[in-house]
Amino acid sequence: MPAAAVGRGFDGYGRRFGRKGPKPEAPFAAGRRGVFWEILPSGAFPIDIRPLEENRVSEPAQGPDFAKGGGLLPAIAQDAETGEVLMLAYMNAESYAETLATGRAVYFSRSRNKLWRKGEESGNVQQVRSIYVDCDADTILLKVHQIGGAACHEGYSSCFFRQVTPGGLQTIGQRLFDPAQVYKKS
Amino acid sequence: MPAAAVGRGFDGYGRRFGRKGPKPEAPFAAGRRGVFWEILPSGAFPIDIRPLEENRVSEPAQGPDFAKGGGLLPAIAQDAETGEVLMLAYMNAESYAETLATGRAVYFSRSRNKLWRKGEESGNVQQVRSIYVDCDADTILLKVHQIGGAACHEGYSSCFFRQVTPGGLQTIGQRLFDPAQVYKKS
Repeated sequence: MPAAAVGRGFDGYGRRFGRKGPKPEAPFAAGRRGVFWEILPSGAFPIDIRPLEENRVSEPAQGPDFAKGGGLLPAIAQDAETGEVLMLAYMNAESYAETLATGRAVYFSRSRNKLWRKGEESGNVQQVRSIYVDCDADTILLKVHQIGGAACHEGYSSCFFRQVTPGGLQTIGQRLFDPAQVYKKS
Repeated sequence: MPAAAVGRGFDGYGRRFGRKGPKPEAPFAAGRRGVFWEILPSGAFPIDIRPLEENRVSEPAQGPDFAKGGGLLPAIAQDAETGEVLMLAYMNAESYAETLATGRAVYFSRSRNKLWRKGEESGNVQQVRSIYVDCDADTILLKVHQIGGAACHEGYSSCFFRQVTPGGLQTIGQRLFDPAQVYKKS
């Protein structure tokens, strides 16, 4: 985890830290609705997501403890309606804050080393219905509504479309789209 | 991830590597039933779990690619009946092989740096119903039957018993047992 990726972000009150210059446009300005924190004005979501080292022994009451994962925590996306586990990706404090602020799942891509606004290319965004943290505050669970029905870049509803069997991996999912049609190569 | 922890294990055919001496007793000898690979003789589960570097570009057809996670991959446990996401833990090749061999979830504890036979102390073992890998073969999904009803050491059915809300974390789970009664301190 490069230091640059965790050294900037939002402080949970909509204030940015670690980067100068004008605040960029919200990545998903249109079409968001129905998540609970929208009862608050934009940027006012009152959860302090900063890792609180001094709170470690007692309750990590405020949210995920990104310091535990060296800045990155695994985040599970589960279909809010069906309960299907869709995918696992990673979040840093900035992607978590942007998820809260926009109501759409934003991850941190370890391979591309930058924010990954899920659905940015395919249109298959994830509308976040609710967020949970585990007992150790080092794993995040998102219940989402998956636009397009397919979370996986391979075209399946879930990334877990292959089952381990005595005969090898067996594809158990139905392909909903053709990746070649959705992800145009430039 | 210490090299020692990934340098030994099973090769997927029940043959051990990286450690000399007699094969230890299976940790869960009694009471296992009903998982699909038990149609095969013990130790004959024919999936080669060795990370196949040369297969990376094509299909990682054989199973989880532990090399991708530096030896450790995240494993999600989901209740096979209700679909509830119970917990996230980590597996190395050895814990994965033991999970296959015993039909009970075995993880690798990062804090204790050793195999973690889930339920060893509490009795709340996880009987594995089916196993899936994701598109990148770097995350494992287990569908399990949770003995005792509670996966979390805090006494909740799921480790994700706290929801992120504008007012802070809110406990949404019902406690099924008192941790002080289950985990006796020596």
